[in-house]
Amino acid sequence: MSEEIAVIPGDGIGQEVVPVAVDVLDAVGDFEFVHADAGDAVKAETGTALPAETREAVEAADATLFGAAGETAADVILPLRSAVESFVNIRPARAYPGVDALRPETDVVFLRENTEGVYAGHEDDLSDDLSTLTRVVTSSASRRLAEFACEFVEAGRGPDGTEGFTVTHKANVMRKTDGRFRDAVVSVADERGVETDEELMDAFATRLPLYPDDYDVVVCPNLAGDVLSDLAAGLVGGLGLLPSANVGEERGLFEPVHGTAPDIAGQGVANPGATVLSAAMLLEFLGYDEDGQRVRDAVEGVLADGPRTPDLGGDATTEQVGDAIIDRL
Amino acid sequence: MSEEIAVIPGDGIGQEVVPVAVDVLDAVGDFEFVHADAGDAVKAETGTALPAETREAVEAADATLFGAAGETAADVILPLRSAVESFVNIRPARAYPGVDALRPETDVVFLRENTEGVYAGHEDDLSDDLSTLTRVVTSSASRRLAEFACEFVEAGRGPDGTEGFTVTHKANVMRKTDGRFRDAVVSVADERGVETDEELMDAFATRLPLYPDDYDVVVCPNLAGDVLSDLAAGLVGGLGLLPSANVGEERGLFEPVHGTAPDIAGQGVANPGATVLSAAMLLEFLGYDEDGQRVRDAVEGVLADGPRTPDLGGDATTEQVGDAIIDRL
Ligand SMILES: CC(C)[C@H](C(=O)O)[C@@H](O)C(=O)O
Ligand SMILES: CC(C)[C@H](C(=O)O)[C@@H](O)C(=O)O
Repeated sequence: MSEEIAVIPGDGIGQEVVPVAVDVLDAVGDFEFVHADAGDAVKAETGTALPAETREAVEAADATLFGAAGETAADVILPLRSAVESFVNIRPARAYPGVDALRPETDVVFLRENTEGVYAGHEDDLSDDLSTLTRVVTSSASRRLAEFACEFVEAGRGPDGTEGFTVTHKANVMRKTDGRFRDAVVSVADERGVETDEELMDAFATRLPLYPDDYDVVVCPNLAGDVLSDLAAGLVGGLGLLPSANVGEERGLFEPVHGTAPDIAGQGVANPGATVLSAAMLLEFLGYDEDGQRVRDAVEGVLADGPRTPDLGGDATTEQVGDAIIDRL
Repeated sequence: MSEEIAVIPGDGIGQEVVPVAVDVLDAVGDFEFVHADAGDAVKAETGTALPAETREAVEAADATLFGAAGETAADVILPLRSAVESFVNIRPARAYPGVDALRPETDVVFLRENTEGVYAGHEDDLSDDLSTLTRVVTSSASRRLAEFACEFVEAGRGPDGTEGFTVTHKANVMRKTDGRFRDAVVSVADERGVETDEELMDAFATRLPLYPDDYDVVVCPNLAGDVLSDLAAGLVGGLGLLPSANVGEERGLFEPVHGTAPDIAGQGVANPGATVLSAAMLLEFLGYDEDGQRVRDAVEGVLADGPRTPDLGGDATTEQVGDAIIDRL
């Protein structure tokens, strides 16, 4: 191992949790870390939330670990996703031991399209009264996502017992765009012999809280994936432990789903779990599956009986939890 | 009272629950009912899901009561919303006595923009690979919705204790369109002295299951309102009891949030609650607030100790529940 990893703590608790995840990566491997800045603080200093050096560091690295950004989140994260040419955002949502969850049965992995939909972002002010946004859907991006979803399921990377995936969309209203998405995804799965079922995104929002067991892997357009995975976060107890991976052909960007948590930033008590679990996804992305699993097991061990940060009812610091995770590796 | 009410049972359980709601309306007032067809069955017969006579009946009526449509739902409901020139879809989501709910504290009214967003529906296939949809947001529609929201809150029509409203959007990504929506809504509220807070729609999806008490009235763009109100439905036990009102300046269209329920259609055991509660919203729309409240009280009384349909654990028929509601009026 000597891959280069770009490290961008960002703002708020990103500054506190990312160093823990770096220590974890350092404990299991021999990586070269390249530190870079992005977010509100660097914007206040330099006028730009995403300096060119940061983008270049991300483009040069094999993988990037990102913490969080404040007001400038979209200005940072969207260009970084494209800097790693990410076509899928992987968002596992499951309950962890010892975390109060409304629906502990939830165990779902969202595979979110990561390049288009409303995020393609062509917007215009056509008059004083009217603005438009052009939502873009291509068969090629939809097919690429579907290929990934099929491989994901075939490789057994879904929750235990996963046999296929659910595709969500709103093709009854967005007939051409989401219709194209649905048709492309379903036809790739059919070609590969992977089972699919379909659910309208509104029905999915009703049903996930009621029947979380019905879902394993869920393939979504970009904004649907954003909203529905965040809904799942609410069912498993919040964002504190949810990791995510922005995966491209060559590079990846790994980030906790949570934000900067301004209410607790600077106190040294943020839960590093989501970021450490994102580092586990980074390890797997680089091919170190066993190390990824070791990190995951260590986090779960600490959650089950180690020290806990205040969000989980304990009084440990970020550092104490980090040390406990590393001790278990 | 001698207003004209168009009645469109539609498909599936719509055929069973709408007659109950008509009986209820007939019991409290003296309306002229005009029956009309729409949905899958009429499409199979005539080739069109929404015959011109039906649209005309809706345009001529003071209010319309609609049941449900199957595959053709979008072909029926979207043109009907525009036939009554509805600019807001009112969707109260709350738990009812005796209904198993994940989050019984939920008591939220969604005010959904009902004319634009992705529903404005300009879609194109630009190549074999690419389709676009033009999402449309105007300040005028957003302001009209906001005026309505302010009046709604000022008139005490929100849940008890409502002091303002939450506006949800995704203006960090859809900067011009949802930015315009947010700015228009907030500025109307500011002019009128109504309090607002803002929540990104993804954060709202995480937080509603966790902190349902934090929300009373929620003002949303069209698709956000669709998905987030359906999420709330999941938290209060499902769609069985949720009514909705599509309100325009002159006319309104009232419909249960649930669909045709093909699994139980034809058995005479569908829960008429959502449709009867939609009829209560119809009464209020026509100015018969007391009658609307009587109907609501009757439904709640039956839910608390009257006969129940199988979805609520009972073995009563639709007709028995309908009779029990009418007996209580
Ligand atoms: C910050 C924002 C642009 C981003 C998104 O919408 O993708 C965030 O909500 C997320 O899901 O990572
Ligand atoms: C049937 C469909 C077009 C409709 C919508 O998306 O508005 C439905 O989901 C609803 O919310 O009434």
